[in-house]
Parts: sequence; C-alpha cells; structure tokens
Amino acid sequence: MNILVINCGSSSLKYQLIDAKDESVLAKGLVERIGIEGSRIKHDTTGKERVIIEEVMNDHKRALELVLSSIINEEYGAIKSMDEIGAVGHRVVHGGEKFSESVIIDEEVMNAIEDCIELAPLHNPPNIMGIQACKELMPNIPMVAVFDTAFHQTIPKENYIYPLPYEYYEKYRIRRYGFHGTSHKYVSQRAADILGKDIKDLNIVTCHLGNGSSVTAVQGGKSIDTSMGFTPLEGLVMGTRSGDIDPAIIPFIMEKENIDFDEVNDILNKKSGVLGISGISSDFRDLEDIAIAGNERAKLALDIFCHRVIKYIAAYAAQMCSIDALVFTGGVGENSDIIREGICENLVCLNIIMDHELNKVRGKEAIISKNIGGVTIMVVPTNEELMIAKETLSLANNR
Amino acid sequence: MNILVINCGSSSLKYQLIDAKDESVLAKGLVERIGIEGSRIKHDTTGKERVIIEEVMNDHKRALELVLSSIINEEYGAIKSMDEIGAVGHRVVHGGEKFSESVIIDEEVMNAIEDCIELAPLHNPPNIMGIQACKELMPNIPMVAVFDTAFHQTIPKENYIYPLPYEYYEKYRIRRYGFHGTSHKYVSQRAADILGKDIKDLNIVTCHLGNGSSVTAVQGGKSIDTSMGFTPLEGLVMGTRSGDIDPAIIPFIMEKENIDFDEVNDILNKKSGVLGISGISSDFRDLEDIAIAGNERAKLALDIFCHRVIKYIAAYAAQMCSIDALVFTGGVGENSDIIREGICENLVCLNIIMDHELNKVRGKEAIISKNIGGVTIMVVPTNEELMIAKETLSLANNR
Repeated sequence: MNILVINCGSSSLKYQLIDAKDESVLAKGLVERIGIEGSRIKHDTTGKERVIIEEVMNDHKRALELVLSSIINEEYGAIKSMDEIGAVGHRVVHGGEKFSESVIIDEEVMNAIEDCIELAPLHNPPNIMGIQACKELMPNIPMVAVFDTAFHQTIPKENYIYPLPYEYYEKYRIRRYGFHGTSHKYVSQRAADILGKDIKDLNIVTCHLGNGSSVTAVQGGKSIDTSMGFTPLEGLVMGTRSGDIDPAIIPFIMEKENIDFDEVNDILNKKSGVLGISGISSDFRDLEDIAIAGNERAKLALDIFCHRVIKYIAAYAAQMCSIDALVFTGGVGENSDIIREGICENLVCLNIIMDHELNKVRGKEAIISKNIGGVTIMVVPTNEELMIAKETLSLANNR
Repeated sequence: MNILVINCGSSSLKYQLIDAKDESVLAKGLVERIGIEGSRIKHDTTGKERVIIEEVMNDHKRALELVLSSIINEEYGAIKSMDEIGAVGHRVVHGGEKFSESVIIDEEVMNAIEDCIELAPLHNPPNIMGIQACKELMPNIPMVAVFDTAFHQTIPKENYIYPLPYEYYEKYRIRRYGFHGTSHKYVSQRAADILGKDIKDLNIVTCHLGNGSSVTAVQGGKSIDTSMGFTPLEGLVMGTRSGDIDPAIIPFIMEKENIDFDEVNDILNKKSGVLGISGISSDFRDLEDIAIAGNERAKLALDIFCHRVIKYIAAYAAQMCSIDALVFTGGVGENSDIIREGICENLVCLNIIMDHELNKVRGKEAIISKNIGGVTIMVVPTNEELMIAKETLSLANNR
C-alpha cells in the first residue's frame, strides 16, 4: 500500500509518498508560501528530475490539488492514479491528553484536535486545514492523525505536573506534554533494532538536536520524561529558543523593556537560544565555524548548549538508574561531530565513552562509542515521515 | 572577640552574639513586627530564661537600640557593655557581581550594596537599614557585609549566562547569581572537616532544603553551579515557589487569568511549590503526615520535590565527573529522613547508598551512608550565623 504523508505549516505543506511494502519513498516535495505571493512547489519523484511549479496557491486545498496532480502526472509523477494511494497520514502537533497513540480520523477526532488549538495556537490550525483539504479531495481514503505529543503520554504524573497551583492543570490543562514524539519513538525503536534487542529491555536517552531540540528518557520503549514541556520552549537551549530560565526573569524583562506577553514570548522563542547568546546566528554550522575562528560568544553559545544537554542526559540516566544507549538525531545530532563530542566528553563518568574516529560520521546510522562494554552511543537519522507512514499503514490495515 | 551577627528583614531583625574564641553563642534573639503594631523581641541569653520585650518599635534603629540594651542588660544580658562587641557582621542578600567575598563596610561598599537593590528589591533595603542603624548606634565598631551571592561568584560563564539576548546581561545584569551561599559554603567546609580531607580535593553536592531550597556543586571548595538563578525562584520545587517551569507558561497564565507581572510573580513565589501541588500546606512535616495518611496530592507534591532534587544532584555529579560527598542541610534536609530517603533511593546508580538506620538522625551532624566505599552521604546542620561571625572576625582582625 502507498501512504501519503502530509505535514502542514501555516504557509507550507511537506509531503512524501511512501511505498509501505519496502518503505521506499516514491515522491516527496515541499509547498512554500501558501497564501503569499510567490507560492511554489518543489516536487521530486524518485529517479526523476526535480520539478518546480510556480502557481498562485491561495489556500492549503489548492496546494494539495497541485500536489496530487504532480504525484499522478504522467511525465514527472510517481503513480498513475489516486487509486494507488491507500491511506493518508497527517502529522498533528498537539493531541493534548486525549491521544496517547495515532488514530483514524473521524468527526470525534476532528473535534478533539480542534479542542487542542488553545494548547498549540500556531500549529494545530494548519494541521487541521491540511486534513480538511485531504477530506475534500480524497473523501474515501482513510486518514490517520499522528501526534507529536502522543509518545510522551506515558510520562508519569510526578514528571508531568508542574509545581504551580494545581487548578491550572484542572482548568487550563497546563502540564508537561513534550514534543518531537514521533522522532523520539522512531529513533529509540531503530536503536533497539540496531542493537538487536527488544526495546522492552532497554533504557535509552534520545537527543533530538536541531533548531528545536529535546531529550527524552525512553524506558522499555516508553517515554518517561522529556525536556520540552507545556510548549516546545522548555528544556534545552535551541537555535532561537531559550529553554529553561529563571521564571522570574520574564516579569523582570517585561517591566524593564515595557513589553507585553506577546512580545516577551516572541523574544524567548525567536531571539534567544544560541542566537541570543552569540548575537550572530542560530545556525550551529555557522557557530562552529565562527567559534573555531576564535569568536568567544559563539564558543560560549555552543558550550552552554552542550552543558544543558549534559545535565538532561545525566538526570535521565539517574531516573532510569542506568542507560544502555545514547542516541543522537535531528539536524545537529546527526551531523555535528563537534557537538556530539562536546556532550560526550563530559559524560565519561556515566560510562559514555566516544570513539573519536567513529564519531566523524554524518547523517547515517552508526555506533560511535568505543566497544568496551559501556553505553552504546549511536547516530540515528530521524525519519518522522516513515514513522507516520508505518502508523498509518497499521491503523488502515486494522480498520 | 565577640561578634554581633545581624540579619534584617523588612519587619524583622535576627541577631546572635557569638564568642569567636570558642564559637559559642552568648545570646540570640528575634525582633518581629518592626513598624507594625505588636512589635516585640524574643531574647535568649545562654543559660538564662527567655525574655520577651513588647514595645513600640517604629524602625530598625529603635529595634536595634532595644536589642543592644537587652544584650548588655544587667539582669538578662550576656555582656557588661558595648565595648565587649568587637565587630558586627551583617547578612546581605545580594552582592551582584561586585562581591565575591565578604568585605569591611565603608562608603564605597554601601553604595555598591545600594546599586544591587534593583536585583533584590525586597531584601537589600532592609539589610541596608540594619547596617545604617548599627552605624549610628556603634559608629566605631568595624562592620562586615557577608553576601548570600558571594560564594557563587566562582561559577563559570557557561553556567551563569542565560540563553537570552546577550544585551540583557550587559544592560540589566540578568545572569545566574545563586543564593544560600553562606550556607553552602559553611556545610561544604564542615563536610570536608568531618571527612578529615582538604576541601580542595573534594567534589561535593550540597542540598540546602527548607522552605527555600537550592543545590550547589562545590568543586575543590568553589561553587561551580547552583540551582537558584537570577532570583531565588529558579531551580528546586520549594514550599511556595515553583522553581523551574516552562517559561511559556507565564504569559499563558497572565493572559488566561488576566493578571499583571506583579500578580504572576506573587503566584510563582507564594502560591506554587508543594503548596500549589498539594493545595494543602507548604510545610513538609504536614505534607509527610498527610501523605502517609493516604492523601494523593500531598504524596505527589513530595514525589515531585524529590524528583527535582535527584535531577540536580545527577546533573552536578556529571558536571564534576564524580562526587565524594552529598550533604543535606536546611530545615527539611536536616530533619526529614523521609525526604532524604526519597532522594537517595533513586541515586543508587551514582553509588549513593544510604544506611536506613543511620538516616534516622535529626538535626545533627552525621554520616548516613553505608560504609562501602561509595559517596559519603551526610547531614550537616547549617549555621549561617557562625559563618558570618567567622568571616567578620577574619576581616576585622586583618584590618
């Protein structure tokens, strides 16, 4: 069965058509600037040349129409007709407390996803637009929602309740949700496969390090704690996000700078992190180059980034008592040997001992620890689309 | 030499008169409700009965006059005349980046302490009032300021810079300062003494657990990281303070509850922590009793409290690579075997192995780990007054 995987942002739509039989990607692409002047599709069918389609796309439905016609295009398409699409899997950011796993989308599910808009006002609305467009254009094809939060619904109460007045949890559902769930689930499962062990017998710490970053403690295949919280702002230092800070700093800044909560949110989400510290860039490759060239603030930004990751790994290792594997994924985790080394060199005490030669790997599955019986350090490129396709296939088959 | 130690709050004044020769307390007391109806002094001279003096005290100067006359009172006093006071040591909460150790108070120092009011608007003003009152009443006695923040000024930059726009550090001095410094310094030094080792050779994690709580990583006698930050709100879950939360929760609450930054500060500082989670009490003894009686929310509050401490201990152990001693102090740390056990039982993997019999100790120095070569777990009652007296003596002698 071929699965179409859809990931909608407010003005973008990413898609992949995956053959579930052999997990191969038949076609993939990106629609940019939906509803904005200059909208276009970059479409790639495997084995064929890239096609760029520049056309006015006022909404996600029009974008999807063009995506589908590209996929079945005689010349640059991947399949002959829409009948060859067996199911559609949608990435949905926030499933609140209602969804601890992926689900077939029906009316009840749509209502529940709408209920979660309040918790993810920037993300859930475009996800919903994508689902609605698909429903209109492919009314008879089963659709599945795969949530970024679902994998973390196994986190126990002592790790998800905040030390705030308890009624905020009851009234506003303020709690730790965690994000990047599909990625943490995928790479932890891959790690178990690579190790040839049952994930039920493993304690794994997964580090998804990219422009957005999070660390998860995966015990026996279940997330028991993660660094992102009520929103994707908490936890690690990120490209432009602060992660953890003294909460009292927020009212202090608001008063000093005479700004409101939208503006402070903007500063914490878009002007902080390694960009804020360095004053130069949110891009880790840029920062590595500039730091090596002697820039102190770029070096400081990377040091602070690594230190925060180290703290979370150590805390999660203690929570699980010991760990079998430490997994790096995400754009930075998969590609930056410097960052991986900066983290691991401070974790020797936890028996995390890197092989510097093996660590030179970029963007592919590899074991990078010394083979001396310590924690297995791994690079596992994430593949959220494949994970969504697998979950979609499994639900579509069991309908 | 006798040292008078003064600790002024906005409407209170705590004092101890300490004989530096043998470190004995000659007298001590507490003035309450200064400037409020019903002001009074509870005065205890060692070996004599407590005296309660109820008298109008409109300001700290009047309070101090009555304290001094109590200390030299023929009947219930401890010394014969003011000449027997060799120096005065003042607790000052915030020394900013200017003070990395205690100092003799002169005009320049007073100006610098005033400069720090902005960083500690609730604490530094009463500290200053206390110093001014002493200067007027004891103009010729040397006075020393001992700062809560000074011990943490050795924290390296990668642990004190926040991942925020760097100009906030430059413009507003927003950085990690840390608090409880006098306590962490005192108990880490005592721990080294008890172990019979030079503190320079030890890695120690000190847990000051009380209504306000913080954990510090002390490497070779120097603080290299601590859980409180720009303010005493960050870090551990406390009696009524939240400690770390997703920063994005703050603007969310402000919008939902339609409250301003003073009100949200009040909620995070006074209505959160174990009080907020349990909805019952900020007192750990109450919570232990109620949890044992079966109250789920009280149990949850204590579990969350312990989990947070565990995370910090593990993170600091990793930062220092290994630890020699884990020290508990503060009202809760010194007295609650239940809390100490709740923390240590999850740290066996770090070779922190408690002896449950030895752990039954309350409020006195003791080693409570099993004697099997792991980390030495200790209870060390804090004594900030003695620490202030020692620092004061040392500076007064070296003038």
